[in-house]
Amino acid sequence: MSSWLASVPARIGPLDERAMAAARTRLDRLTKPPGSLGRLESLAIQVAGITGLDIPSLEHPAVVVFAADHGVAARGVSAYPSDVTGQMVANFVGGGAAINVLARLAGASVVAVDVGVAGPIPGPDGPDGPAASTGARLVSARVASGSHDMTVEPAMSHAEASAAIEVGRSIVMELIGDGRDLIAVGEMGIGNTTAASALAAVFTGRPASEVTGRGTGLDDAAVALKIAVVESALDRHRPDPADPLGVLAAVGGLEIAALVGALLACAESNVPVVLDGFITGAAALVAASIAPATAERMIASHRSAEPGHRAVLECLALEPLLDLGMRLGEGSGAALALPLVRAATTVLAEMATFDSAGVSGPR
Amino acid sequence: MSSWLASVPARIGPLDERAMAAARTRLDRLTKPPGSLGRLESLAIQVAGITGLDIPSLEHPAVVVFAADHGVAARGVSAYPSDVTGQMVANFVGGGAAINVLARLAGASVVAVDVGVAGPIPGPDGPDGPAASTGARLVSARVASGSHDMTVEPAMSHAEASAAIEVGRSIVMELIGDGRDLIAVGEMGIGNTTAASALAAVFTGRPASEVTGRGTGLDDAAVALKIAVVESALDRHRPDPADPLGVLAAVGGLEIAALVGALLACAESNVPVVLDGFITGAAALVAASIAPATAERMIASHRSAEPGHRAVLECLALEPLLDLGMRLGEGSGAALALPLVRAATTVLAEMATFDSAGVSGPR
Repeated sequence: MSSWLASVPARIGPLDERAMAAARTRLDRLTKPPGSLGRLESLAIQVAGITGLDIPSLEHPAVVVFAADHGVAARGVSAYPSDVTGQMVANFVGGGAAINVLARLAGASVVAVDVGVAGPIPGPDGPDGPAASTGARLVSARVASGSHDMTVEPAMSHAEASAAIEVGRSIVMELIGDGRDLIAVGEMGIGNTTAASALAAVFTGRPASEVTGRGTGLDDAAVALKIAVVESALDRHRPDPADPLGVLAAVGGLEIAALVGALLACAESNVPVVLDGFITGAAALVAASIAPATAERMIASHRSAEPGHRAVLECLALEPLLDLGMRLGEGSGAALALPLVRAATTVLAEMATFDSAGVSGPR
Repeated sequence: MSSWLASVPARIGPLDERAMAAARTRLDRLTKPPGSLGRLESLAIQVAGITGLDIPSLEHPAVVVFAADHGVAARGVSAYPSDVTGQMVANFVGGGAAINVLARLAGASVVAVDVGVAGPIPGPDGPDGPAASTGARLVSARVASGSHDMTVEPAMSHAEASAAIEVGRSIVMELIGDGRDLIAVGEMGIGNTTAASALAAVFTGRPASEVTGRGTGLDDAAVALKIAVVESALDRHRPDPADPLGVLAAVGGLEIAALVGALLACAESNVPVVLDGFITGAAALVAASIAPATAERMIASHRSAEPGHRAVLECLALEPLLDLGMRLGEGSGAALALPLVRAATTVLAEMATFDSAGVSGPR
């Protein structure tokens, strides 16, 4: 374990109660009935608590999409071939994926990080070449060419898992250093709902059958196979939830490990981070097992159609902002929720008070 | 009844099936698993059906907030005094209300329409004076100085109701003429949840106790009084849901009538309209009773905390995009949902296809 990872839990404290109280007081002075903006108000208070600012400003959002391949994909657990991971990274760079469209609308830049794609990233420019003006910046940081098949060996060595965590940490620290004040996370990796299901089973204590779903679109028979694959991996490794790094190495994945590093780095830096769906939620379970105070520093963008996501969010005690039956990944749900998060803080910052606007309060 | 109102139902047809089929086909060619964007996909298809365009573009949204006072407010049915209606209109013009902040974030202009505020609109510039650069344009179109107390007489004469409908129709036609392609509606009127509860009871067939709530923040005793007021009004007028204009005149309100005109005008013009909460939903019930094909041309932004809203949305067969416990009105929920609506159509328009991006489909 890196010295950063060993020491980071001690540096992630509870939410800033003073800033939260100040935000709460201000919200009740704004020209609206107290509490009438519902979840937007609790979200503004949470962001005040994360940032330590009475009136936080989230003007510079970024989306980070971590990509990697999964050895377990060879077991037939995905409706798509593994080639699609690299092809979709090229699509991110070209600007044609859902995450590009949704991030543009939210005024967020996109960084795609190759943590462990197995094959080449197709395209005229290749890795680190110039991106289309509307596309994502590509960061090549391959720790390995995909993870190993978790049904026969650990998905990663401890060294690989630690290196991938460091990739996530360093890219987030770079973004924050560049002034990004709101981070949305996403992922791409054919086979990664299988890894996420295994992680969810370990940390929520639910049976694999309850937290394993159709992923990108499996039929009933393929879901049954996928459940058996998850059970087989859990049976082989018997991962211990008290050893989150061991669990991650055994049944996780390289992009999931990078997400863990990204989530911990956001929490350590007092920067709000917006989760996407099931896979980022599984990474959040690992991060919260490493440093429990991390969970309340996360914002859950949506509840995905993947059945295990509900259990993951319950375990994290997070209430999602959206519930639109989405199951795409890439950070698409997180990007879609960015305007809601910014709405919450902008209401807090920009609305008039009863006094300033000359509006009568309740009688 | 005006000749427009008499003839408009015949001009509002079903959704354009051809455009919907084209949108559906295109969505399945985009670089994502089929259906994986969930509700965003059905929303894009609905907008195609409303506009008749295979790839609709919603680039110029506007928010219209209709304001009026309610005679029934004298019965103590609101936590706030009636003065607040005009004060909040002044706040809209000054740019300090929640709707101003949320509309700015959504890139939407705001028009506040005084359909029947009882007192003067306070402020240095007065009605129709220059607005703050970030504020709403004010349109003065008072049909009356508030509605009458529905517990002793009809809230409006038929002539007043028709005139208020015409206000809503004409402002929407002006906005559409100016190139606005997506209309969000809202309202301001102390006492108007009482009128909305009466309308909801008539059109959903539920008892007043099920569709009457806390409004801006009543305690239990005041809610009981409010239910009794609604029951008393219904008992006096015995409104007939088969006569929607009669119901509107008896227990509606001037801003609610203007909303009815606005909703019908959007439907007639093939322009998508985004509902806000309980009061705009009650207006939607009236509009859908006048012209049933109107309902599927509406987009429900959110489910409000007001208990009657669930019954209203069910009656309209609309599924809301958001469920955030909001209960402010003003169009705040509608404005918050505008980025989601634009996300749906922009995904349809701008995402790459599997072919164009060189991404493999399912195996």
